[in-house]
Amino acid sequence: MPKIVDHDERRLELVDATWRIIARLGIEGATMREIALEAGFANGALKPYFPTKDTLLTFAFRHVFNRTNGRIREVTAGKAGIPALRAFCVEVLPLDAERVNEARIVVPFWQKAINDPDKAAIHRESMDQWHAAILEYLNEARSRGDVRAAVDDSAVAGHLLNMLLGAQIAAALAPGGQADPGLNGQLEAFLTLLQAGS
Amino acid sequence: MPKIVDHDERRLELVDATWRIIARLGIEGATMREIALEAGFANGALKPYFPTKDTLLTFAFRHVFNRTNGRIREVTAGKAGIPALRAFCVEVLPLDAERVNEARIVVPFWQKAINDPDKAAIHRESMDQWHAAILEYLNEARSRGDVRAAVDDSAVAGHLLNMLLGAQIAAALAPGGQADPGLNGQLEAFLTLLQAGS
Repeated sequence: MPKIVDHDERRLELVDATWRIIARLGIEGATMREIALEAGFANGALKPYFPTKDTLLTFAFRHVFNRTNGRIREVTAGKAGIPALRAFCVEVLPLDAERVNEARIVVPFWQKAINDPDKAAIHRESMDQWHAAILEYLNEARSRGDVRAAVDDSAVAGHLLNMLLGAQIAAALAPGGQADPGLNGQLEAFLTLLQAGS
Repeated sequence: MPKIVDHDERRLELVDATWRIIARLGIEGATMREIALEAGFANGALKPYFPTKDTLLTFAFRHVFNRTNGRIREVTAGKAGIPALRAFCVEVLPLDAERVNEARIVVPFWQKAINDPDKAAIHRESMDQWHAAILEYLNEARSRGDVRAAVDDSAVAGHLLNMLLGAQIAAALAPGGQADPGLNGQLEAFLTLLQAGS
């Protein structure tokens, strides 16, 4: 019987290896050779999956985004309004080691996206999707009477989204890759302000 | 008479050239050779000023931070509380082409800082300084009765600081280097929430 190779599975092994290497050596140190070594691949065996380091990085970013969205679906299931917004934000914020690692992938991706219109477009699409999600939670919160402030919800959603992005930078640059427990307090302070006067 | 060279002046010329090159070619494309060419230096003439591209990038980051702080001092002079906080944020947000360019320098610096403890420390010191400034504006706003919300001001300051960082990413990745006019609305929405119930 011919050996059956699960190509999707192998791609994900490569993404995991990419993470570990970038976390250890930085994005410049993450050569295709190092990534192959870490994933237990022969040097040339990566090419069929990812012809360049760039395609691998883009795949890794999409994977992080999709995985985060999968977690968001789970934690927001059956929730609406403020509870759903809180669950969404808690999931996006780098509150544990896994998500601090994700932040360490996402910041190099952003850096590359500055001069790569395709990567920048991927980022913007992802952010548009999250902006729409936040806006829906805010609409629900208003219809429940939990938010009454005279503010533009689209602007509030944009503000909160920028805070979630900024938290990735703080996390990626924290000493020893530690998660910042203060992020939860920042989120709660914002949610309190959002509901003030209601 | 010997030719008098203003070394500080030349360093700033190099920082300006670095910006233009990074904005055009990305940080990987910004070789010392390209930067020298752009600044009108002979290739080897950079070494006495910046022995490596890395020292140049760190200098450029400090320069952006110091210049931003210089602008902040000007725009907050004679202000306190919410007006000072607004002026501070307007100055940090990438609301014009110059500051979008600065964002395009700062994001690569962050990426490098992930695996460079010295750069990460520079970032954290800068952010600690801004956190203290925001906290002082909030204290002033409370003593004037403009902010009464039952929230932890340190958490609010951390939240706002993360939003200001996140806005740099959005700006650096915007198509055609355009400033996002929506950022001003995001700031105003936040300031409205902050003052709600007072």
